Amino acid sequence: MKKAYVHGYDHRENIRLQDQASTLVELLHSDTKYPAGSRVLEAGCGVGAQTITLAKNSPGALITSIDISETSLVEARRKTAEAGLTNVYFEQADIFNLPYVEDSFDHIFVCFVLEHLSRPVEALNTLKDYLKEGGTITVIEGDHGSAYFYPKSEDAHKAIQCLVELQRRACGNAMIGRELYPLLNQAGFKSVRVSPRMVYVDSSKPQLVDGFTKKTFTAMIEGVRESAIKSGIIEQSVFDQGIQDLYRTAEADGVFCYTFFKAIGNK
Amino acid sequence: MKKAYVHGYDHRENIRLQDQASTLVELLHSDTKYPAGSRVLEAGCGVGAQTITLAKNSPGALITSIDISETSLVEARRKTAEAGLTNVYFEQADIFNLPYVEDSFDHIFVCFVLEHLSRPVEALNTLKDYLKEGGTITVIEGDHGSAYFYPKSEDAHKAIQCLVELQRRACGNAMIGRELYPLLNQAGFKSVRVSPRMVYVDSSKPQLVDGFTKKTFTAMIEGVRESAIKSGIIEQSVFDQGIQDLYRTAEADGVFCYTFFKAIGNK
Repeated sequence: MKKAYVHGYDHRENIRLQDQASTLVELLHSDTKYPAGSRVLEAGCGVGAQTITLAKNSPGALITSIDISETSLVEARRKTAEAGLTNVYFEQADIFNLPYVEDSFDHIFVCFVLEHLSRPVEALNTLKDYLKEGGTITVIEGDHGSAYFYPKSEDAHKAIQCLVELQRRACGNAMIGRELYPLLNQAGFKSVRVSPRMVYVDSSKPQLVDGFTKKTFTAMIEGVRESAIKSGIIEQSVFDQGIQDLYRTAEADGVFCYTFFKAIGNK
Repeated sequence: MKKAYVHGYDHRENIRLQDQASTLVELLHSDTKYPAGSRVLEAGCGVGAQTITLAKNSPGALITSIDISETSLVEARRKTAEAGLTNVYFEQADIFNLPYVEDSFDHIFVCFVLEHLSRPVEALNTLKDYLKEGGTITVIEGDHGSAYFYPKSEDAHKAIQCLVELQRRACGNAMIGRELYPLLNQAGFKSVRVSPRMVYVDSSKPQLVDGFTKKTFTAMIEGVRESAIKSGIIEQSVFDQGIQDLYRTAEADGVFCYTFFKAIGNK
């Protein structure tokens, strides 16, 4: 499945994904711990931003992390080795054509992947085949429609909408977080439970102001500036004002809200 | 301060406020408990929807609940008596002209009130005068800009926007939740801490589907149907479709999200 990855693959993007991962680790991952000896498939590991946390949280689990991009895997392997982690095996593979035996994993972990797929239910359904009976799937996704802030700004919403639109054109869905419950149910998982992970940022939390509002969210929107303007979906002045307004929410009286969704389902 | 109360004062509205209160009690109020003997002012108690919980959670506290509407107070008194609560004293009073001595309350509690005021910072500032040094203020507000759902619907957002607009015309702010941090700071409170209380509803939680999505939120939007259409801010067909789409989010594959904000500050 070839697909334009809306966030790009450059070095600056790697740094952004890393900043994001370290700020959000607690909020998103602290309750994901797999037992020693269990076989875990991380589907779509990218540059390994989540892999490190996954492997650290479950030191006894045997983790197989796959991604369709060999370039990303090189970086993921490097980072994992650097962190001294030895319980992760990386492999280049396509979610829709996995080189594994069915019913072979105890748990599957999918983070920030479904948003980029044109057929998320089929992806989940395919992954289910590789899960043992009674095993769990954990899915984490953001939702760009969950972003709101103070001071309010129409331009900021328009700039965010550019990423949503570009992701839609690449057959993805940047507002998929809210849909995890129906998606996992449609894919045939049982006992689906979803918990929202809301990031609330005001200036009493300088680390989040810097690590999330500025370096994660606003940097991500800024990252599509060129493609958004080039594609004609927004005027440059509006986009730039929107970005300025997003940075404005990081000031002393500003507030920024965003919600991730974490879903768990059983086979 | 005379002000049109956008939700109205009829019996059906009382029932809605009561439904809302019982569904959300845990989420909003479980961490508000005042010590025995402390004097608490509830500013803007309305029909007493929150008063019952407040009084039950802090049985030893001496609660003074005021509201500008005598009609609402009659209902609030009735309900409190019915619940057998004896630690609440009701009084008709205006937040901007309180009949109390300054520095006389240990704690102040303000829930779903600021959204209806044209001068929320001045209201907070005035209330602060009646708070003892070191005392706390607790403020709870919703934010209608925090509502999003699946399936997505532009019409539903337009219907919600009607309430926002009507409240704006009545000099209120239906999206005030996100602003609590700057508002309390501007009013001079110290150590302001805000925690969002997100209501996430999918069909695995039938009580919330019924009690929140349908009977609280959608019923509230439906409640402004006549005024919204009469004022010409929306076409009847769009409003009705919006309401239908909100009810649609209460079906088996639907999801509904809304966030309240709770802020605490010290004098």
